[in-house]
Amino acid sequence: MNQNSLTFGSQLAKAVLTKKNPVCVGLDPRVEGLPDSLKPTDESSYSAIADAFEKFCVEIIDVVSPLVPIVKPQVAFFEQYGPEGMLALKRVIAYASSKGLLVIADAKRGDIGTTAEAYAQAFMGRGSRSAFGADCLTVNPYLGEDSLTPFVERADRTSAGIFVLVKTSNPGSGFIQDLKSENLSISERIADWVQTQSKIEIDQVANGRTSSPTGSEGQSARYGSIGAVVGATYPEQLASLRARMPNAWLLIPGYGAQGGNAKDIASAFNADGLGAIVNNSRGIIFAQKSKSYAHLNWQTAVEAATNDMIAAFQA
Amino acid sequence: MNQNSLTFGSQLAKAVLTKKNPVCVGLDPRVEGLPDSLKPTDESSYSAIADAFEKFCVEIIDVVSPLVPIVKPQVAFFEQYGPEGMLALKRVIAYASSKGLLVIADAKRGDIGTTAEAYAQAFMGRGSRSAFGADCLTVNPYLGEDSLTPFVERADRTSAGIFVLVKTSNPGSGFIQDLKSENLSISERIADWVQTQSKIEIDQVANGRTSSPTGSEGQSARYGSIGAVVGATYPEQLASLRARMPNAWLLIPGYGAQGGNAKDIASAFNADGLGAIVNNSRGIIFAQKSKSYAHLNWQTAVEAATNDMIAAFQA
Repeated sequence: MNQNSLTFGSQLAKAVLTKKNPVCVGLDPRVEGLPDSLKPTDESSYSAIADAFEKFCVEIIDVVSPLVPIVKPQVAFFEQYGPEGMLALKRVIAYASSKGLLVIADAKRGDIGTTAEAYAQAFMGRGSRSAFGADCLTVNPYLGEDSLTPFVERADRTSAGIFVLVKTSNPGSGFIQDLKSENLSISERIADWVQTQSKIEIDQVANGRTSSPTGSEGQSARYGSIGAVVGATYPEQLASLRARMPNAWLLIPGYGAQGGNAKDIASAFNADGLGAIVNNSRGIIFAQKSKSYAHLNWQTAVEAATNDMIAAFQA
Repeated sequence: MNQNSLTFGSQLAKAVLTKKNPVCVGLDPRVEGLPDSLKPTDESSYSAIADAFEKFCVEIIDVVSPLVPIVKPQVAFFEQYGPEGMLALKRVIAYASSKGLLVIADAKRGDIGTTAEAYAQAFMGRGSRSAFGADCLTVNPYLGEDSLTPFVERADRTSAGIFVLVKTSNPGSGFIQDLKSENLSISERIADWVQTQSKIEIDQVANGRTSSPTGSEGQSARYGSIGAVVGATYPEQLASLRARMPNAWLLIPGYGAQGGNAKDIASAFNADGLGAIVNNSRGIIFAQKSKSYAHLNWQTAVEAATNDMIAAFQA
């Protein structure tokens, strides 16, 4: 581990404690959702679309960076527009970092050996020769434990993190994730792996602290850098998976547009009030399209929707 | 389905019958593997590396395009170098297509709803406003059936295909894929889904043919466009998964460097000699690094290794 910097788990704890809320703003730009002022002049030009996406995300970051700890660009919406889209993604990640936000690249990558290493380097670790340089990457566990190891190793080396897909928010997520084998569902099994990894890291940090008292990370050192994606749309599983992974950060999708509310998500937090971040994409970035915020200009609508979501979690 | 073109499943059958072999050349460029003449002048420059990757892959395509039906660029190795790497990928795919090869983008993408649609558009369908325009994409089934549907729909609309990860070649693939639930392993369950999808497509094509006799696709119409990735490194599972998916193409990784040989893979083929394509990356593109081919110039080594692999499958 990089001796000079906090682990990702501790960076995230610090950011949540500083901003006093667990809100993650999802940067999911779509042409049809862009405000009129930012519509690309030529909708058949991928570089015009990519430019519009970049401007849109930069304006959102300007609004939300004083308010929330973290943002999550959805890589697919950029990759859809090819190399030009990926250049916009790279710039959006760099801009968010420059404004003091942590950044999750939501790419759900998963592969084996040197291929997994290549994805890890592509997305993880600011200033570590990572092309996109996010703080954290979402990863898919289907290929097995050995496919996750390269991401864990990169997280350790570059003070970055991962969120492993455990139980996703979509209606069909049970097709594999809920299947039981030897009394454990697939999602429980992955959850146990995530908890083990985060616990190992925390114990290593604690041992390091013993020999070097200046390394103290305080309260935040209870959370590792290997987290889990658990959807807001299955509240019972959310509560039970929270309990299985006391030392892991949860990334909760499915709030708002997908139907989850703050009450559904209450069980995602530990007694210390930490342990989960809650993503909202459309409900914030396209807030002006909803009745409640339609009377505001689009940036003010983004701000109001962000503040309303923050309030829901502080109530 | 596009009425004017063959399905991907039939295109692949035609290509394999024309070239008389099932060899897929994996385009997995690595800086350390490049021939001296193509080493990037500046190894810290991602655009220099991306240029070198493009030149390397173009030369390989020149050698193998008369010999094999299909190539498979590994997206991670390009994405590692950011937007510049992705531009090289786009050009490599276009070049391979222009030389008459089918192209699988090996990206193992998987997500839900509009996000899955974005990945599908990014990679699938020549000339269908797809940024990368490959013929086929590898996809990850962990998020469930509804996460696969957008890829199946795009395959149908653009005469493209997908290979779903069923049983991968790595040592840890059993962690999830071999777990049994209600007497079916996860990989068997995904295999049944793949077979169902390909069978539906074949029946639809057959019905279309009844009303329009000019639409006949002959022998090749026995294979659908929804295929499966099954590793060469588990020969018994390969044989049993072949039998479960009589109408699906199998993409077989793990030949050569990972330990699988032609005998291990014999059971991957149906009685008609079709039904599987076998990938080899390092063993072909870095052939000159191995003793058998070290006396040849690197392009001749690629050609000799390709011909030797073809011979192993014609024996």
